[in-house]
Amino acid sequence: MRRAVALAARGLGSTSPNPVVGCVVLDRDGRTVGEGWHQRAGGPHAEIHALAEAGDDAAGGTAVVTLEPCDHTGRTGPCTRALLDARVARVVYAVPDPTDGAAGGAATLRAAGVDVDSGLLGDEAAEVNVAWLTAVRRGTPHVTWKYAATLDGRSAAADGTSRWITSAAARADVHRLRAESDAVVVGSGTLRADDPHLAVRGVEGAVQPLRVVLDTEATLTAGARVLDGAAPTLVAVAEDAGTGHLPGETDVLRLPRGADGHGLALRPLLTALHARGVRSVLLEGGPTLAGAFLAAGAVDRVVGYLAPVLLGDGPPALAGGGITTLTEALRLHVTGTAHLGPDLRITAVPVPAAAAGRP
Amino acid sequence: MRRAVALAARGLGSTSPNPVVGCVVLDRDGRTVGEGWHQRAGGPHAEIHALAEAGDDAAGGTAVVTLEPCDHTGRTGPCTRALLDARVARVVYAVPDPTDGAAGGAATLRAAGVDVDSGLLGDEAAEVNVAWLTAVRRGTPHVTWKYAATLDGRSAAADGTSRWITSAAARADVHRLRAESDAVVVGSGTLRADDPHLAVRGVEGAVQPLRVVLDTEATLTAGARVLDGAAPTLVAVAEDAGTGHLPGETDVLRLPRGADGHGLALRPLLTALHARGVRSVLLEGGPTLAGAFLAAGAVDRVVGYLAPVLLGDGPPALAGGGITTLTEALRLHVTGTAHLGPDLRITAVPVPAAAAGRP
Ligand SMILES: NC(=O)c1ccc[n+]([C@@H]2O[C@H](COP(=O)([O-])OP(=O)(O)OC[C@H]3O[C@@H](n4cnc5c(N)ncnc54)[C@H](OP(=O)(O)O)[C@@H]3O)[C@@H](O)[C@H]2O)c1
Ligand SMILES: NC(=O)c1ccc[n+]([C@@H]2O[C@H](COP(=O)([O-])OP(=O)(O)OC[C@H]3O[C@@H](n4cnc5c(N)ncnc54)[C@H](OP(=O)(O)O)[C@@H]3O)[C@@H](O)[C@H]2O)c1
Repeated sequence: MRRAVALAARGLGSTSPNPVVGCVVLDRDGRTVGEGWHQRAGGPHAEIHALAEAGDDAAGGTAVVTLEPCDHTGRTGPCTRALLDARVARVVYAVPDPTDGAAGGAATLRAAGVDVDSGLLGDEAAEVNVAWLTAVRRGTPHVTWKYAATLDGRSAAADGTSRWITSAAARADVHRLRAESDAVVVGSGTLRADDPHLAVRGVEGAVQPLRVVLDTEATLTAGARVLDGAAPTLVAVAEDAGTGHLPGETDVLRLPRGADGHGLALRPLLTALHARGVRSVLLEGGPTLAGAFLAAGAVDRVVGYLAPVLLGDGPPALAGGGITTLTEALRLHVTGTAHLGPDLRITAVPVPAAAAGRP
Repeated sequence: MRRAVALAARGLGSTSPNPVVGCVVLDRDGRTVGEGWHQRAGGPHAEIHALAEAGDDAAGGTAVVTLEPCDHTGRTGPCTRALLDARVARVVYAVPDPTDGAAGGAATLRAAGVDVDSGLLGDEAAEVNVAWLTAVRRGTPHVTWKYAATLDGRSAAADGTSRWITSAAARADVHRLRAESDAVVVGSGTLRADDPHLAVRGVEGAVQPLRVVLDTEATLTAGARVLDGAAPTLVAVAEDAGTGHLPGETDVLRLPRGADGHGLALRPLLTALHARGVRSVLLEGGPTLAGAFLAAGAVDRVVGYLAPVLLGDGPPALAGGGITTLTEALRLHVTGTAHLGPDLRITAVPVPAAAAGRP
């Protein structure tokens, strides 16, 4: 199953709106005879790849799969059918399929006499699919806020210089995060300050994420780097914003303004992205937009790249959000730390408000 | 030697102005027959403790010691004499003694026919003695800046609330740091905001550090908690500050004002502390004083306690210091990370300016 989870992870960023799935087929003697993962939406599921590799050796063997095999005929046939056709004797899966249409695979297999087990390494398999599982449950994409800062929490120096606070290793890791995401989101402040490109570079086989800019008044100029065509781009603007200056082919999303009059409403944004098949969003800032997402409870994971640098001055990594006293602070739970060159990467998830009390 | 270094560490905070030293005595068959460490200034050296425990078994054996044995008659006799009297055949030490008076022990032992080796685990033994070695070399104490902050670099919420940003585990670790330090230093801003106590609590056998407050205009009131007598306190003020309102027994240090007119001059402060036997200083803030120490190049080590909390507002962990652009940023090298309850502790040392270039 650990191997199947690793196979599943190879699909991150290219399977949406589908989950990532990995599958290992063992023959009746327990030898690995087939491996597969779901590579892209519309393509064969993990089980189909693995069964094809296994061929006749699958008969009487075991299929180990990270997600409950699907039971419906979508763009591909049901995997339960393929498993039965291959005369697999046993299926072990990690996580049940929560979707309405696809679920029921386990029951179908059992009814056909296959020995079915579930739950093995369930946490790890759920983790690799966290974006998809969250999005299915909630109807809005899973959001990761990524930031880069100094040890004292500055995102740039006082004069605005910020290239490069973090190292090449950390920046490469950001490209990996982007490649694993369906969409990358920034605010108009970052757009104006940095003219960012936001496409993935240096990740082999990466599917470019949708670049999304939140630009209430459509201040974006036609020459902006996000409009260069290297990846799809969505420009979110207010319902009444004038967009005549943008190239005709620009994909414009019109949204209501936020209830507090600042910027665009975030819930409709996330719903619209979900409707477009986006299951995972990488929020790349800046500090003001991140503050708004956090205040809205719309951040599911935080990835901070901390450079071992002290500035003592300069813009903060996070601004606004309206927290004024410590009891209102957003408490996180650190789920991982890593060294990337000289830098540290800290991964954390928000602690549910009820559990966030502190001695 | 690893055991000897661990023994040496037990002396941290109570041996100044002496180094910490650990010693293990092995008999001629390589069995450990004596262990000792230097426990407090004026008390017996590590070798004396270990030889006493070994008794006659030391004859023909080996003494493993973290620092070159001393050769001078200070408050205690020379360790070289004690090693020769015990008829030790071999001495292995990690780090040479850099002081003028105490050095030469290796030569004395060799001249008397003892087999002497050096350098074993030299880095680890130097690390446990880093404060003392730095202070001996430089004539000013080793300075550790400790701070506690949120992941986004805030030392308090916007309304000033900061108890408790970090967890009980992190706060206990700060008490350990204090116990290992000869002096704890804060600025008048922290004094007024927090009325801190600064004494060590909860560390068994701890020697209380000297509490030092930098209070240019002597704004400290007689009822301040740092004047409670639980630990010695030094109040540093400007040469012309009026101190008549302080209790008669208050230990006052008069210093010149800083060259830029802000606060007190830091170099004379550090020289004065060294003259009082202080080899290690824990700088506990606040952000302004830390900025001044960093700008003066007077910080040898940074220990940051990062709470997995986001505020988006509130005072920064570090202020001032005069850095305005990224190329002037203070680059550090992360030497360690640890999890303390929910929090992270990051230990780092400044990178020499010449080596701090970044791609
Ligand atoms: N260190 C890092 O990781 C990192 C990452 C990204 C950026 N940055 C830096 O951050 C700086 C820019 O940050 P910033 O805070 O000025 O801008 P920002 O967060 O990128 O954008 C904020 C703007 O987005 C628009 N917006 C639209 N809907 C919003 C909503 N619901 N809530 C909040 N804002 C919304 C608003 O402007 P309109 O309503 O007028 O459109 C708002 O002013 C740059 O210097 C950049 O280099 C750092
Ligand atoms: N999170 C943490 O780790 C932490 C730790 C400590 C404090 N804090 C917080 O920090 C806040 C106070 O910080 P702060 O920045 O206002 O005060 P601070 O750094 O504690 O003290 C600054 C003051 O020290 C005096 N000083 C004397 N010599 C100086 C020199 N050479 N350079 C700079 N200052 C010198 C100056 O006042 P005079 O010249 O007038 O005496 C200066 O205003 C409090 O809210 C406290 O809770 C946080």
